[in-house]
Amino acid sequence: MKLYNLSAGMNPRRVRIFLAEKGVEIPLQEVDVAEGENAAPEFLHLNPIGKLPVLELDDGTIITESVAICRYIEALHPQPNMFGETPLETAQIEMWTRRAELEFGIPVMNVFENLHPFWVGRITQVKEYGELAREQLLRRMAWLDGELGKRAPEKRDFLVAERYTIADIILQCALIVAKACKVRIPEDQTHLSQWFASVTSRASARA
Amino acid sequence: MKLYNLSAGMNPRRVRIFLAEKGVEIPLQEVDVAEGENAAPEFLHLNPIGKLPVLELDDGTIITESVAICRYIEALHPQPNMFGETPLETAQIEMWTRRAELEFGIPVMNVFENLHPFWVGRITQVKEYGELAREQLLRRMAWLDGELGKRAPEKRDFLVAERYTIADIILQCALIVAKACKVRIPEDQTHLSQWFASVTSRASARA
Repeated sequence: MKLYNLSAGMNPRRVRIFLAEKGVEIPLQEVDVAEGENAAPEFLHLNPIGKLPVLELDDGTIITESVAICRYIEALHPQPNMFGETPLETAQIEMWTRRAELEFGIPVMNVFENLHPFWVGRITQVKEYGELAREQLLRRMAWLDGELGKRAPEKRDFLVAERYTIADIILQCALIVAKACKVRIPEDQTHLSQWFASVTSRASARA
Repeated sequence: MKLYNLSAGMNPRRVRIFLAEKGVEIPLQEVDVAEGENAAPEFLHLNPIGKLPVLELDDGTIITESVAICRYIEALHPQPNMFGETPLETAQIEMWTRRAELEFGIPVMNVFENLHPFWVGRITQVKEYGELAREQLLRRMAWLDGELGKRAPEKRDFLVAERYTIADIILQCALIVAKACKVRIPEDQTHLSQWFASVTSRASARA
């Protein structure tokens, strides 16, 4: 297997953390997105929409999409369980994974693409939309801080299932990009801050 | 069980189609979003981010997020399989589910929210962003039409796995909203048009 990687990217980081939690090593091949390597024919042959990460199996089969790659790894290496054991737990982890993706990951990318200097001259930035996305992101942070605060203290370190799961990884990676876009967790959001400190102190966070 | 529903909504439709394919009936309770019922305390108690669908189990447990609800139903009613049987098939269905969600569902909602008259005066619409999302959506349609066209004719009726899966449902529901936003599949995209005609002719499409 080989994992096509973008070190600074939100979605490749998800897979690297996931692999580290599983204790699985897969050779990485860096793709230089800043130099347009992901738009070159060799890469588009792997993933025609030009996005990372991409997992290439030994027989040449391609799996794109971070969560699809993680789910494949989970099937091959079931422990520690990161996607759920029972029907209800699996559904609740998926619920929080989607909330992390759609309510945090998407607005974070909208802030990044529409406000960050990296994209100036590369894509059409719509600043007004980027500002709306930033407000949305801050509202979602406030909501989640409140949700965590309603729980017993020992249940505040993980989004769901009282252990570290794919849902935590998705949110953690979104908030790292948020930080790079200068959208930091407000200081008075102590529960979300504590969660973030907890997940980012894991050894896998440096993967 | 009870399913809180929004008849015209993209995500509740996914669950209704999924249930119809499974032959499972769950009582529906319509939530009047146009009248703000999803922002009322009774509903926010179920889903604090105010979105539909929401599944309420008999013991009061709540599952939000369309795909999480479908995955729960799949665990209780495994046949017909809609999420994958083997590790690879499961990963490939997730890959196409995410492509359908992120490359079609998200831009479709961006078109809807930023350009459709329904939202005038309800949210801040950024027309420039809506136009970009429409272009993005049309580019993705062209890409997918090409992908389907590369396959053998008998493999063009489904996105993945040569049977109707959750990935088809996600794309189908996105393109229904696109149509409501006057973004139709261009006539020269015969493969995508054929796929859409095929999935929408299923009995479940009327659910």
